[in-house]
Amino acid sequence: MMEMNSQSQEKSYMASIPSKLHEFIKKIKKIGEEDPRRIIHSTKVGLALTLVSFFYYFRPLYDGFGQAGMWAILTVVVVFEFTVGGTLSKSINRGCATLLAGALGVGAEYLAGVCGEKGEPVVLGLMVFSLAAVSTFARFFPNVKRKYDYGVLIFILTFSLVAVSGYRVGQILELAHQRLSTILIGGATCMIISIFVCPVWAGRDLHFLVAGNIEKLAAFLQGFGGELLACGGDESSKDSSGKNVEKSFLNGYKSVLNSKATEESLANFAWWEPPHGKFKFNHPWKQYSKIGALTRECACLIESLNTNTNSKPLTPSPASEFSAKIRQPCVEMSTESGKALAEIAAAIKKMRRPPPSAEAHVQSAKSAADRLRSVLQNSSLPPKPDLQEVAPLLVAASVLIDVIRCADGIAAAVGELAREAGFEGLKTNEAAAAAVHRRGIVSPVDDGDHVVVEIQAAAADSPEKKIIST
Amino acid sequence: MMEMNSQSQEKSYMASIPSKLHEFIKKIKKIGEEDPRRIIHSTKVGLALTLVSFFYYFRPLYDGFGQAGMWAILTVVVVFEFTVGGTLSKSINRGCATLLAGALGVGAEYLAGVCGEKGEPVVLGLMVFSLAAVSTFARFFPNVKRKYDYGVLIFILTFSLVAVSGYRVGQILELAHQRLSTILIGGATCMIISIFVCPVWAGRDLHFLVAGNIEKLAAFLQGFGGELLACGGDESSKDSSGKNVEKSFLNGYKSVLNSKATEESLANFAWWEPPHGKFKFNHPWKQYSKIGALTRECACLIESLNTNTNSKPLTPSPASEFSAKIRQPCVEMSTESGKALAEIAAAIKKMRRPPPSAEAHVQSAKSAADRLRSVLQNSSLPPKPDLQEVAPLLVAASVLIDVIRCADGIAAAVGELAREAGFEGLKTNEAAAAAVHRRGIVSPVDDGDHVVVEIQAAAADSPEKKIIST
Repeated sequence: MMEMNSQSQEKSYMASIPSKLHEFIKKIKKIGEEDPRRIIHSTKVGLALTLVSFFYYFRPLYDGFGQAGMWAILTVVVVFEFTVGGTLSKSINRGCATLLAGALGVGAEYLAGVCGEKGEPVVLGLMVFSLAAVSTFARFFPNVKRKYDYGVLIFILTFSLVAVSGYRVGQILELAHQRLSTILIGGATCMIISIFVCPVWAGRDLHFLVAGNIEKLAAFLQGFGGELLACGGDESSKDSSGKNVEKSFLNGYKSVLNSKATEESLANFAWWEPPHGKFKFNHPWKQYSKIGALTRECACLIESLNTNTNSKPLTPSPASEFSAKIRQPCVEMSTESGKALAEIAAAIKKMRRPPPSAEAHVQSAKSAADRLRSVLQNSSLPPKPDLQEVAPLLVAASVLIDVIRCADGIAAAVGELAREAGFEGLKTNEAAAAAVHRRGIVSPVDDGDHVVVEIQAAAADSPEKKIIST
Repeated sequence: MMEMNSQSQEKSYMASIPSKLHEFIKKIKKIGEEDPRRIIHSTKVGLALTLVSFFYYFRPLYDGFGQAGMWAILTVVVVFEFTVGGTLSKSINRGCATLLAGALGVGAEYLAGVCGEKGEPVVLGLMVFSLAAVSTFARFFPNVKRKYDYGVLIFILTFSLVAVSGYRVGQILELAHQRLSTILIGGATCMIISIFVCPVWAGRDLHFLVAGNIEKLAAFLQGFGGELLACGGDESSKDSSGKNVEKSFLNGYKSVLNSKATEESLANFAWWEPPHGKFKFNHPWKQYSKIGALTRECACLIESLNTNTNSKPLTPSPASEFSAKIRQPCVEMSTESGKALAEIAAAIKKMRRPPPSAEAHVQSAKSAADRLRSVLQNSSLPPKPDLQEVAPLLVAASVLIDVIRCADGIAAAVGELAREAGFEGLKTNEAAAAAVHRRGIVSPVDDGDHVVVEIQAAAADSPEKKIIST
């Protein structure tokens, strides 16, 4: 009996090894699939390191640089980052810091030499101590921390090495020349490979991260509008949104709340990058932080909207006349502000100015809010209203009003970004279509070469037809 | 005229230098005052570096270790972090990775040697490439990134150096021995100084960060309750809270929203730290992340509460009878949940179990919420209610109900933390005092050796006196 038990245990143990291996492979696959650039990056690092090893390996170079070739390998391993901006920031920091600290180290060496044999170690020790302490303190300055943290580290390192080692080696200038050239070789290899072989631009990532976050908010708001409508007891909408619609949008916004750290580091790296693609020199990277902050504020409001909805269901039935009166503008506020954000996100992704229709959606959300206000002011309540039933809706309405204000802020900030970065507006015919879309109900009919647009203008009695050539 | 102008410009320029210097000094002072441990840390780094320089500097040691002494300096500069956990994590990572990669490097060397003179560079190149690529990819695993990122970096570095350099130097084992001992010296110096000279424990920082965040929420809620009361048109409360009370509490919670990154890195570092102070071995650091997440959720609710209040003033006057009926429970909900959080934060800071009175405050907040619900269900509205006036209050009430649920969650999570970490409960007489406090109105009178407590029990007719020895 015992034996069987232990046998079966062994079996299950043996069986669990392949299953664990399978799980591990699945995990690797998932990480690779999440962002295939990770695989490319790993290959790039291997490539750079192999290339630089040759500087150390082959005899002619070895004779030239000696042990210093090691510094090329060290530089590549430490400096190569996932994004171009990260690599550039570290390379440039390392290069400049080594140069500056080397020069200072030689100066310290000279000064200590003047003090005689007994004074030298004391002077050198004092200098190393004070420089290390002051530089370490400098790393606490927010500005230094953001951009030059690595440079200060290398500064301390190089100064100490030069100041202390120079005493022994003597040929300090030759050593410095060797070390600088190898570091340069390492740094240049990294920079060239990271810029020219499938580059990962931090700026581009930041751009699409911000746009993606706005998109997530938009998805929530549009989905929430649908939910509200379904709660209203409208059977036809229940069919389409009750079961079929995926509810993942209800959680998508959560990642927005914690996006600050990623956004900040990307913005810091983007600062170091040369112009690339549609991102010109002096691209307003700071504006992204502003948009990001507004996005997170909006996500916070959405979080409380979601909490409110989850804890107090929006009373699907029986819907009183009064709650229907409130629900309708709420649906519109949510859907319209969602549409506005979706168009803004799409515009950012295409590096265009936000289309006028986005502004139109914000406006209609605002007018829905105004309508809601007048409903609240003027409608008479039923003789004994169940405030418990109406309250969650009122709360949703109030938060939505704040969301609209936030969306308006995002639209303004994105507009500013587009102006500062010189994004193009819509092409003329697109703009015309957008303007037309705003004026009334439009049913576009595509008949091959032309798009026939039927406009049922608000003021006009008869529908007019416009032909916009495509 | 021109001359005067340029003179005055020069003057203002000259004058601006001292003012800029003054500003700079003020900035330094501010950074130092914000956290005086920064100054101590800088001194510690200087000290460690000076100590280690001697290994490189003095002849007997120089003869023993040669150029390898450089690695001790390098290790100190790169490994010394602000917190003990950070230093330990980097030192241990560096040590283990160097050992492992060194051994693998020697193996690679041997394997390449077998392949003949022509095959050797190809085999070494391939091995460096594949190891670097695989290790770089491993850094994208969340678990590896969190704890072993630096170790993997050093692993790649050491392996490449040993594999490539071994070809030249020949005496690879001696080199490895030298390098390992110097790295050990550097790492040990850092660890000893960071643990024994004014240590900065990441765990302790995390503990107080989490407690401080809860405290900030408590300050807001208590302040918000006061504000609500003042809006109710109660003149006596207006006097005390209208002008004198600082409104900084209204913004204190904002830093909570962005505390995730700091919290995470502190929790990662805390994992490496040995038992210290009241933090025992196996302290439940993970629980802090749980509490932190709940705190941020609560901060989000508070943010929307604040947005709501700022955009729609809570109608100070004329207060209708109905809005007064809603306001009273709201004030209580806010103040009581604030008090509960304040007591929980204080308990965390003292490393005690949350006192029963915290639970009592949560309960009275909950009963206020219940009262509000019955008000909403049963009270008849005035014939034509101005919903616009009541709506912001209803919103505040609804969000506050969610806040209470959140506070309840925080209380439970902190209770779990206290249980897992083995925090002590209150001492018996304190517990008695707390219980008494809960039962009725208590006026403590201190008469020297004893604290006389007058209890006006809710049920009892005559006030009873209890003497609690202190």
